[in-house]
Amino acid sequence: MSRTRIHNFSISLDGFATGEPQSLEAPFGHAGQRLHTWMMRTQSWDPDGSDGVDNAYAERHGPGIGAEIMGANKFGPPGWHEDPDWKGWWGPNPPFHTPVFVLTHHTRPPLEMEGGNVFHFLEASPAEALETARAAADGKDVRIGGGATVVRDFLAAGLVDHMHLVQVPIVLGRGVRLWDGLEGVEEAFDVETVASPSGVTHFTFTRKTS
Amino acid sequence: MSRTRIHNFSISLDGFATGEPQSLEAPFGHAGQRLHTWMMRTQSWDPDGSDGVDNAYAERHGPGIGAEIMGANKFGPPGWHEDPDWKGWWGPNPPFHTPVFVLTHHTRPPLEMEGGNVFHFLEASPAEALETARAAADGKDVRIGGGATVVRDFLAAGLVDHMHLVQVPIVLGRGVRLWDGLEGVEEAFDVETVASPSGVTHFTFTRKTS
Repeated sequence: MSRTRIHNFSISLDGFATGEPQSLEAPFGHAGQRLHTWMMRTQSWDPDGSDGVDNAYAERHGPGIGAEIMGANKFGPPGWHEDPDWKGWWGPNPPFHTPVFVLTHHTRPPLEMEGGNVFHFLEASPAEALETARAAADGKDVRIGGGATVVRDFLAAGLVDHMHLVQVPIVLGRGVRLWDGLEGVEEAFDVETVASPSGVTHFTFTRKTS
Repeated sequence: MSRTRIHNFSISLDGFATGEPQSLEAPFGHAGQRLHTWMMRTQSWDPDGSDGVDNAYAERHGPGIGAEIMGANKFGPPGWHEDPDWKGWWGPNPPFHTPVFVLTHHTRPPLEMEGGNVFHFLEASPAEALETARAAADGKDVRIGGGATVVRDFLAAGLVDHMHLVQVPIVLGRGVRLWDGLEGVEEAFDVETVASPSGVTHFTFTRKTS
């Protein structure tokens, strides 16, 4: 059974998944790298990094995933669709290694890159996008890669089976909130919470099967 | 040295310390008791309750406290100031057992109740209220009792030395947010996070001494 999964999705104490304003120079705005420092300090990111609980979560990002769905704001800075040569933030060999479906109002032909990365650009509802991604995932799971708006839309549509959130103990004050419009969303999930010695808190939301 | 402390202050995943609308029948609005169930299940509240980590935190509410400061919204439902006989939610012997300073635009004479509870009603800034409460605390600590607006005002004024927050894994969606206007507030604190088997997460903010 192919599941829909979210991994390593980092938010502040006040629920922001990015700061503002987002730009080419500052993809997460005034948040900088603060939401993701925990991950950059693990072996999944840095060979000299830690191999404790943070890495145990971080390394679950890839295995079993056959496709990713991401929002336009994850693929590039505001206005990227006006640059026909924009190919994402990640260099010639992005870290996805699967088909990636970018939700955008500005579709363009597929972009094939190294390492099995093929970006498809589509305008679709969450359910439609998931159906398309699942067909491409060859029986494996589909990852919802963010940003916050896309995660929120998939949660609101009841399409998420597994969500790993990481709460970083900072108060950002502004940016894009994950939780808006999601009153009671936890009722569909079993929630497990683990505090890491690094200072972050890991939440695992697993959809109830009953 | 008299410190300013906050204990057992409960918030949702999305940072709300109460739901809405608040009323005599529903002091926390649509949140009901959900933000405080963790506490009501400890021995501090119920003799048959648990005596694990949740109780270890909960029972720190009283010791060493010489006065409390609370907001008008904690003392009564909207409009309580129009009822001269309103004496709080807590019956003849409230659980404070110290002087309590209620911040309100509608002051009234002090109200003396059983068990050492004396309510004073004052219109004052956080700093002024703290000076008054500290004088009454006889060298002990002053507790900021909430609600969210009062906690936020004292945090913004840099007047909090110790804050124990409890994050409950529910998404309330609406109510009064703790974190609004507090960007970067964590920089003044060391933050410790403990996940309880009960499902809640305890945060301890301790003001940096350097």
